[in-house]
Formats: sequence, structure tokens, C-alpha cells
Amino acid sequence: MVAPNADIRSTVQRYLDLVADGTSTEIVALYAPDATLEDPVGSEVLRGREAIGGFYAGLDGLAMTTNLVTLRVCAGHAAFHFEVVTDTGGMKFKMAPLEVMTFDGDGLITSMRAFWSDEDLVVDA
Amino acid sequence: MVAPNADIRSTVQRYLDLVADGTSTEIVALYAPDATLEDPVGSEVLRGREAIGGFYAGLDGLAMTTNLVTLRVCAGHAAFHFEVVTDTGGMKFKMAPLEVMTFDGDGLITSMRAFWSDEDLVVDA
Repeated sequence: MVAPNADIRSTVQRYLDLVADGTSTEIVALYAPDATLEDPVGSEVLRGREAIGGFYAGLDGLAMTTNLVTLRVCAGHAAFHFEVVTDTGGMKFKMAPLEVMTFDGDGLITSMRAFWSDEDLVVDA
Repeated sequence: MVAPNADIRSTVQRYLDLVADGTSTEIVALYAPDATLEDPVGSEVLRGREAIGGFYAGLDGLAMTTNLVTLRVCAGHAAFHFEVVTDTGGMKFKMAPLEVMTFDGDGLITSMRAFWSDEDLVVDA
């Protein structure tokens, strides 16, 4: 069974809301137990909720805002372009990755791959 | 060896230029001999230049314009958002897929996956 497109759209938006205002524990709950995460593509692939939780724990406490720019959903996949601004108090850093996620029949994320490189970072956005 | 990011950027732009104004033969030359194509994601995966050429032959003769919106390149991968407008004379159809391509060390496309669905089609754009 493939997750309905509408469910995938909701989960992507909830994911971005949680990256901005949630906790790593809440984010990890969107992932399937044996999910993989590769961020950025080309770096080590993390597998399982513990490793993925460790990745998002690095974002806990940061002042971040997110904005979904474009989302395409088909056949249990989401591809989306979003902006994330991190405000350190003195400076703002803006990234706008493209990400691809796959979902299981229950709508849990089974894989996430983020496409970006250092050259895409904008300071003082 | 991983293709340099600059080469991948050039190839993506040339790909979009050829989709607009080139021939299927020219497009296929950007692909590696054993490349795969999945457009849209979830449909049959085509393998090899002959099958891929057949896919693009369906575009030959259509009046199309393309525009690159966003491109991210990392580790031999490109992820990009582009617009393609097909002008049938009476009506215009606009699609704006997200695509992911992988490249070999020579900069040839080894895989292409296009993320879009019918609900993304805009008529009379």
C-alpha cells in the first residue's frame, strides 16, 4: 500500500513545522524505525531512529524558521524545496535544500536525502 | 571519480536547453549507455539509450520552453526544479517537476527521476 498523497503532504509540512518549532523527539517520531537519512547526499547514511535522533538533536535549541517553497508528491515519494533560516542572534544563515523522502504505507518516512552544498549557504539572509 | 559540480551544472542547463530546442538524439547523448529513466517516479523504469531515446522522441516537434528555477549539486548528484511550458498553438500546458539526476565520472547522466503528478499540471499558463 502506498501512502495517500494528501497524507504525505501533511507530513512534509509537519516535518518543516517541527524543524522550526519542535523537538528532535517529535521529528524522529515521523520516521519509520529502520529509516535512513543522508544529509547532505554524499555524507554518511544514518540508519534507525537512534542515529536519526542524534542528527536532529543538533538542531534542538536553535532559533530556526522554515518555509516550504515547492512540493511534488507521487507514488509514495515527496520531493520538495524549502528554506530554513537559522538566527544566531547576531547573524542569520539561510539554506534552501531540495529533499527527497520516501514513505511507507502508514505514512512514516522511510528515507530522507537532502541535496545541498556549502556553496548554497547564504549569510545574513 | 566524481564529476565536478561545475560540469554537472552545465549539463543540467544543456539538458533543459535541449528539451526546449534540441532533438531526442542530442538529449540521449547526455546519458550514459546503461542509464535509467523514471518519469514520473512510480512509472516503469526505462534502461539504456534506446529506451530513453524513445521517451524523448515523444517530445520531438513539440513547441516547448524550459526554465531552470532551482539547482542543487552535491557528490555527483543534481536535484533541480524547472518549468516546462508546452504550447500546442491553442493552449499552453505548464509543468514544474523536481528532478534528481546522478552522473558518472565523465559527467554523463546515469539516472534521472522526475517527481510530479497530474495534479501539478497547469493549463493555459
